[in-house]
Amino acid sequence: MIDKPSILRETDADAIRLACQLLRGQRSGALAVQEPGETGFPFISRVLVGLDIDGAPVILTSRLAVHTQALLLDPRASLLVGRLGKGDPLAHARMTVQCEAQPVTSQDTVHMCLRTRFLRRHPKAELYIDFPDFLFFRLLPIRASLNAGFGRAYAIPGSDLMINSPLSKEILAKERVLLEELNSNRNAIAKFVDGHARGDAQGWLATGIDAAGVDLALGDELYRSDYAQPLENLSDIGI
Amino acid sequence: MIDKPSILRETDADAIRLACQLLRGQRSGALAVQEPGETGFPFISRVLVGLDIDGAPVILTSRLAVHTQALLLDPRASLLVGRLGKGDPLAHARMTVQCEAQPVTSQDTVHMCLRTRFLRRHPKAELYIDFPDFLFFRLLPIRASLNAGFGRAYAIPGSDLMINSPLSKEILAKERVLLEELNSNRNAIAKFVDGHARGDAQGWLATGIDAAGVDLALGDELYRSDYAQPLENLSDIGI
Repeated sequence: MIDKPSILRETDADAIRLACQLLRGQRSGALAVQEPGETGFPFISRVLVGLDIDGAPVILTSRLAVHTQALLLDPRASLLVGRLGKGDPLAHARMTVQCEAQPVTSQDTVHMCLRTRFLRRHPKAELYIDFPDFLFFRLLPIRASLNAGFGRAYAIPGSDLMINSPLSKEILAKERVLLEELNSNRNAIAKFVDGHARGDAQGWLATGIDAAGVDLALGDELYRSDYAQPLENLSDIGI
Repeated sequence: MIDKPSILRETDADAIRLACQLLRGQRSGALAVQEPGETGFPFISRVLVGLDIDGAPVILTSRLAVHTQALLLDPRASLLVGRLGKGDPLAHARMTVQCEAQPVTSQDTVHMCLRTRFLRRHPKAELYIDFPDFLFFRLLPIRASLNAGFGRAYAIPGSDLMINSPLSKEILAKERVLLEELNSNRNAIAKFVDGHARGDAQGWLATGIDAAGVDLALGDELYRSDYAQPLENLSDIGI
């Protein structure tokens, strides 16, 4: 119970699946950085979480904020993801991801792709996403600690959280069209949210596609549906 | 939007009131520490949060856990409190509290008081609270950053989060009896949860009393009701 790294379970496919779903299916998380100014304190704040095509979580922050100033000085960060639900807060799965933060500004070529994907997940960010003091950080996972509930702790290599696929580039280029096709096929959407929304797909929309799965949203609710196996062909996307 | 420390609002009584309610009314939070082993990473995890009679948040952790090992080496910690609700995660109030962690083991004289209060708030912790590897940390607030929603950021001095009252000792000594009296007076309970539970006090129980307010619980839900002013006499407790 609570995090007990010395009694780790062996990391199996189910643990990795849960870890990926936790990381990919969150709209927000808590981010810890080293507080600037050599105070020696960590500094923790709440951040919106997006997802890059390669599985790296993405945050959008202002240069006026403590965490941005911190990450520009020291890229070492710790991201906590996992939803609280009813009952004991420690009974719900959560994961600590030790990450290296990579800044992405509007000068960078990948900025537009991050921006497009981030806005699909967080439409309200449109209000400030183009403010000159805002930038993205890709949070490259180095290693993670998954706590799936009492007594269920696993070490997850950062590489197991990434989506490495030769299809990524093509999906990224076609994502808008793929999403339109997917969202016009209600049976496909129903299949993706099955199990989460009890088969009632009404109102759910796909907001992101990558080689490992689909992000779906119903208003402010986000659900991540990973494929049983990463896509090998674009035709397997399930439209 | 997002944390903008350079455009802080002036800290007024309402901000301090919200800050205190956020800190005192949470069952759990995210805690950042310095990861042991000189990795230079912060490390973030979810913790249950209790409340000491003087307003210091309290956590219960295992010596086998990373955060415990970290805090025993370096007491500087950052605690994030604040509930997520519907809608934009950044629209909900939250607070970063920079704290100094003070270990409290079963050898310490204050341990029994912390244990009693912690169990009233987290009854399920009884399963492990007496395990030999578990200890408490009091998290003494040094300074805090309150983010009350878009554009509403405040710096809160740590001392404003504490409950300094000459009555604390007496309340602590009588707390069990005071809670029994309070819980047998349903009108009193209704008054405390009024506004939160829309006057329906059914099932709510007071689980903690201090000089600044009352903790109330309905199953796993916690509600903190602070007095308009800290108590000056025990007779004002509202039973």
